[in-house]
Amino acid sequence: MIGLSLYQEIQADLKEVERELYRYVDAPHPVLAESSAHLLKAGGKRLRPAFALLAGKFHNYSLDTLMPLAVALEMIHMATLVHDDVIDGSFTRRGIPTVKAKWGDDISLHTGDYLFARSLILISSYEDQRIARILADVSVQMCQGEIQQIATSYDLGQSSRDYFYRIKRKTALLISASCQLGAIAVNAPNQWIRALKYYGFHLGMAFQIGDDILDMIADEEELGKPVGSDLRQGILTLPAIYALRYSPRKQQLADLLVERPKTEAEVKEAIKIIRESGAIEFSFDVVERYVAKAKRQLAVLPDVPAKDTMTYIADFIRVRSF
Amino acid sequence: MIGLSLYQEIQADLKEVERELYRYVDAPHPVLAESSAHLLKAGGKRLRPAFALLAGKFHNYSLDTLMPLAVALEMIHMATLVHDDVIDGSFTRRGIPTVKAKWGDDISLHTGDYLFARSLILISSYEDQRIARILADVSVQMCQGEIQQIATSYDLGQSSRDYFYRIKRKTALLISASCQLGAIAVNAPNQWIRALKYYGFHLGMAFQIGDDILDMIADEEELGKPVGSDLRQGILTLPAIYALRYSPRKQQLADLLVERPKTEAEVKEAIKIIRESGAIEFSFDVVERYVAKAKRQLAVLPDVPAKDTMTYIADFIRVRSF
Repeated sequence: MIGLSLYQEIQADLKEVERELYRYVDAPHPVLAESSAHLLKAGGKRLRPAFALLAGKFHNYSLDTLMPLAVALEMIHMATLVHDDVIDGSFTRRGIPTVKAKWGDDISLHTGDYLFARSLILISSYEDQRIARILADVSVQMCQGEIQQIATSYDLGQSSRDYFYRIKRKTALLISASCQLGAIAVNAPNQWIRALKYYGFHLGMAFQIGDDILDMIADEEELGKPVGSDLRQGILTLPAIYALRYSPRKQQLADLLVERPKTEAEVKEAIKIIRESGAIEFSFDVVERYVAKAKRQLAVLPDVPAKDTMTYIADFIRVRSF
Repeated sequence: MIGLSLYQEIQADLKEVERELYRYVDAPHPVLAESSAHLLKAGGKRLRPAFALLAGKFHNYSLDTLMPLAVALEMIHMATLVHDDVIDGSFTRRGIPTVKAKWGDDISLHTGDYLFARSLILISSYEDQRIARILADVSVQMCQGEIQQIATSYDLGQSSRDYFYRIKRKTALLISASCQLGAIAVNAPNQWIRALKYYGFHLGMAFQIGDDILDMIADEEELGKPVGSDLRQGILTLPAIYALRYSPRKQQLADLLVERPKTEAEVKEAIKIIRESGAIEFSFDVVERYVAKAKRQLAVLPDVPAKDTMTYIADFIRVRSF
């Protein structure tokens, strides 16, 4: 997990964003207000607001200017989380009950719709139309990623290309947009906007692959959910796709992965085969390459402290699970 | 149902909108493309695009200018329908299987998210920021209406005020926005925009109350769904709320309405009590009053053929179920 200490430069402003998030999700209907507040309290790294603020640091930084964007980005992220929980049937996230578990599918669905719609009000306050356009485009692609995840679940024939298509849409594009839009909001030069967009993209890819590795190797208590939750849902991530191709026990792994539901012993055995195949090392290499690409983008940016923080975050993602 | 013949003036352009809808919902992922096309084929009156085009007729009409708006309005409407079907557990709509019935909740949820996100791309093409702002605001309120519908289901203590709060958000605001935004898109004077906004609002209220009356009295085959579907889901509409207060058999009605699930005989008996209470006549009176208010708004508008069509549509809603 990325601690707040990483963001020292923007720590005070991120706390302002946090307060504004609580103020803003408040709804006339108590159920909506409670389910939204519950989501906020469930925590999270506020990675997207943090990136928007950091990107804003390269040019005419203003918290007032960046605030609606930062709040909207986190709300869009939260909206996708509530809808994902409906789909996945998840009853806990980060160790606490999901909105679905507390209020049911109906409320989860509308809480997601509500948070997304509220974020649009914030977005529509920007005169620069690129902001609304980019977020609309990212939202469409995020849906396509989700649909592809459903379509490929339990599909042992999928390739790593399918996996990259999915995580690009599920994760990388919104993180990319957070960096890009932070820079657009403060009217940074186009070259910097482009560099930040690609920094965010590569970092987002690294971040999601890292998450998917953690789901195979992490300490359960630290993770806040049982290890192997992807496998249980039939979601094949990079380590599983690698092992299905290169493990000497790939047939046995395939037999385990199509089981539904899987016993605890089956999940543990599948993870064992994956880990012994070299898939984790391979996946870490891929993370390394994305991190390197992300850091390379920063070269064109001016040497402000936010640049060091962005380098540091990239390195942190690289090492967080070793 | 409002037939296409009502819209003679805009019939050719509405067909263009229809073609554009089919082109536009096409998605890279086959499941999304199919579920969206299925929704389109399920029909519908295309009331919202029709109102946007009609409103555009009062000032510098241009189909090119109005097209993205017209398509976006129908997509937003479709998005709410798919999400409603997830919630209601409806397996047919207008007599044909719902997306939920054919593809399941997961795909329905993401199809709704996808259609909504795609509509935002169209909306973001307008330079006039009022369009995005009004639609964002309406979307938030639509969610609040849905949440309130869930919260008040089977609640026999609710008032007609609760009902009006709900149908305003569920139906009237988007129809109002369709009229208002059609006028905004063609840069009509503010006074006309305001008149069209309130015309749409009152008409939308009349339209929804009319629909709710039809659910009590219509011919099942014509309705495309069983009569009494609201009562089955525990949704209390104006006739039920009236009868719960004024019917001599209100206690018996209350006992029937809280049953879940209800037998066919119970639904029929509840409808009988409601019809005998005078609730239908009362509700028709309310429709009449909204229709009159809608028509009154048209007074400030110039005498173009679209004005006659709008008057005609208002009268049509008034009489469609007599």
